[in-house]
Amino acid sequence: MLTDTAKIILDLDTGIDDTLALSYVLASPDAELIGITGTYGNVVVDHGVSNDLRLLAMYGREDIPVFKGIDHPSTAESFAVPPDSEIFHGANGTGNAEIPAQTDRQAESRSSVDFIIESVRKYPKGELTIVPTGALTTIAAVLEQAPDIVDKIRIVLMGGSLTQPGNVGPFAEANINQDPEAANAVFASGADITMVGLDVTTQVLMTKDDTKALRETGTPVGKFLADMTDYYIGISEQEDGDNYQGGCNLHDPLAAAVAIDPTLVTTLATNLMVETEGPQRGRTIGDPSRILQEPKTTKVALTVEAQRFHTQFMDRLLNLAKASK
Amino acid sequence: MLTDTAKIILDLDTGIDDTLALSYVLASPDAELIGITGTYGNVVVDHGVSNDLRLLAMYGREDIPVFKGIDHPSTAESFAVPPDSEIFHGANGTGNAEIPAQTDRQAESRSSVDFIIESVRKYPKGELTIVPTGALTTIAAVLEQAPDIVDKIRIVLMGGSLTQPGNVGPFAEANINQDPEAANAVFASGADITMVGLDVTTQVLMTKDDTKALRETGTPVGKFLADMTDYYIGISEQEDGDNYQGGCNLHDPLAAAVAIDPTLVTTLATNLMVETEGPQRGRTIGDPSRILQEPKTTKVALTVEAQRFHTQFMDRLLNLAKASK
Repeated sequence: MLTDTAKIILDLDTGIDDTLALSYVLASPDAELIGITGTYGNVVVDHGVSNDLRLLAMYGREDIPVFKGIDHPSTAESFAVPPDSEIFHGANGTGNAEIPAQTDRQAESRSSVDFIIESVRKYPKGELTIVPTGALTTIAAVLEQAPDIVDKIRIVLMGGSLTQPGNVGPFAEANINQDPEAANAVFASGADITMVGLDVTTQVLMTKDDTKALRETGTPVGKFLADMTDYYIGISEQEDGDNYQGGCNLHDPLAAAVAIDPTLVTTLATNLMVETEGPQRGRTIGDPSRILQEPKTTKVALTVEAQRFHTQFMDRLLNLAKASK
Repeated sequence: MLTDTAKIILDLDTGIDDTLALSYVLASPDAELIGITGTYGNVVVDHGVSNDLRLLAMYGREDIPVFKGIDHPSTAESFAVPPDSEIFHGANGTGNAEIPAQTDRQAESRSSVDFIIESVRKYPKGELTIVPTGALTTIAAVLEQAPDIVDKIRIVLMGGSLTQPGNVGPFAEANINQDPEAANAVFASGADITMVGLDVTTQVLMTKDDTKALRETGTPVGKFLADMTDYYIGISEQEDGDNYQGGCNLHDPLAAAVAIDPTLVTTLATNLMVETEGPQRGRTIGDPSRILQEPKTTKVALTVEAQRFHTQFMDRLLNLAKASK
């Protein structure tokens, strides 16, 4: 289905695991990152985009354009980072570790929405995948503004939870919870969506052994990734309670990896909806009114080859860190 | 795994779809019904057991023993039929259709709990399957009283909902909701459980075309099954709102069919829990504290070969009705 090299647009709210996802895609010989679009969630859009620009400078990849996306939920006038997000990602979004690079580069003047629409139109169907790892506001705007691309766009998103509880309450996962109305519109659009949610992302971990290996590369990049991830592991241990499994979850990197190699997960095809009312607000669940409707357009990842992903993830990240200056 | 003929104990709260499940098992050449145990839910235990005895008389199968189970939830002193159950199953449990048989036979004096424990001990592992289609109170008592059979018992239950909303509220399915504490104990026991819940049972329907075919057999049994099921279809159309799909759901028959032929469904292996507190009470959901724990003991049915099941179900039911007097 995909050509040998998967073209990727990352729609990031950067963010610790966003940083790891970005690193993974850059480290993947079978992927080509054609652009980053900035959404909100772990951080505000301007902050995430600033982190993206510095990370690309750190990796010597200032050829990759960065675009700003919509900066607040579709049903609100503005957005402020929720306290939980700031706890998990640190005030600077990278766990209080300093990105070891600066840049004067700015985001492109075109909007994220325009860049995504043009890119989907530009490449043959199946070549390009959009990977949202934050609020789905920008993606909903894309599909509303260009309904003609619904049958062509391919989306692999980090978000939601179908067979596990939420992580911002019993029902909702954080990304979906930022803008449930936008998420519901995306799932209802009929677009080809793979949902990489808590069902699988809580099964893939990065541990202190992994950060030790990154640190031992002896490079500034290796040290930065190790410091940042050690913060994330520490916060996970502190906040996850009985659900702590000995490391931090690789939410966004798994979505990026599935975009490149769909065989990492098995999926359930279903017609999904997002609850928007009451205590269920933000819950992703099958829509019983469409239980028999074909085709079922959302593929929900339910099992993951965790060991294969982890080995590949660490191999690639270590290579990237070693090759850096 | 199973021998050619699957030995079955049905744990019923009879009930319209319980009646259809019982009929299906009796009509299946690859199944042997070794006993019926009576639980509560759609009806009270005494009423369900009385229906079972009359149904077995109707089918000329008074060789099959019937046992009474526990008649109220583990956390309550008594049980009364919920108004919704009475609406869906009619005051007599068979949609106000009269079972065309009477009997003087009584339930056995031994309890359901003892009969199930003895039966599990009696047959080689894999030969016998317990099929609960109501509250799980009796099954929880079995596992508490005889923990040594946990590794030997095989359970295929109708109940729960993992990827769809509940049917007695946004979260809970009716059978689990009768006794969430008992259900949670059953799932936590480590026993080999296949959960046949709303995820799949809402995908299998019986329609007016099917009841017409039963009626056209011209037998009292065919007429009874048609009348009873027409009531169920009518109530479903009246109560299911936007979720009505043109017929009534074959909840309990699908569980019985999966007990006989597991290849009708695909399943997700997971460690399931039942919420017992607050508005979530009765919700079946993955337990995040056991996300990585192996083996994952509950197999949740998520897809079903609906057409194959329906064809087999109707073929067998029509044969049974035609062969009856």
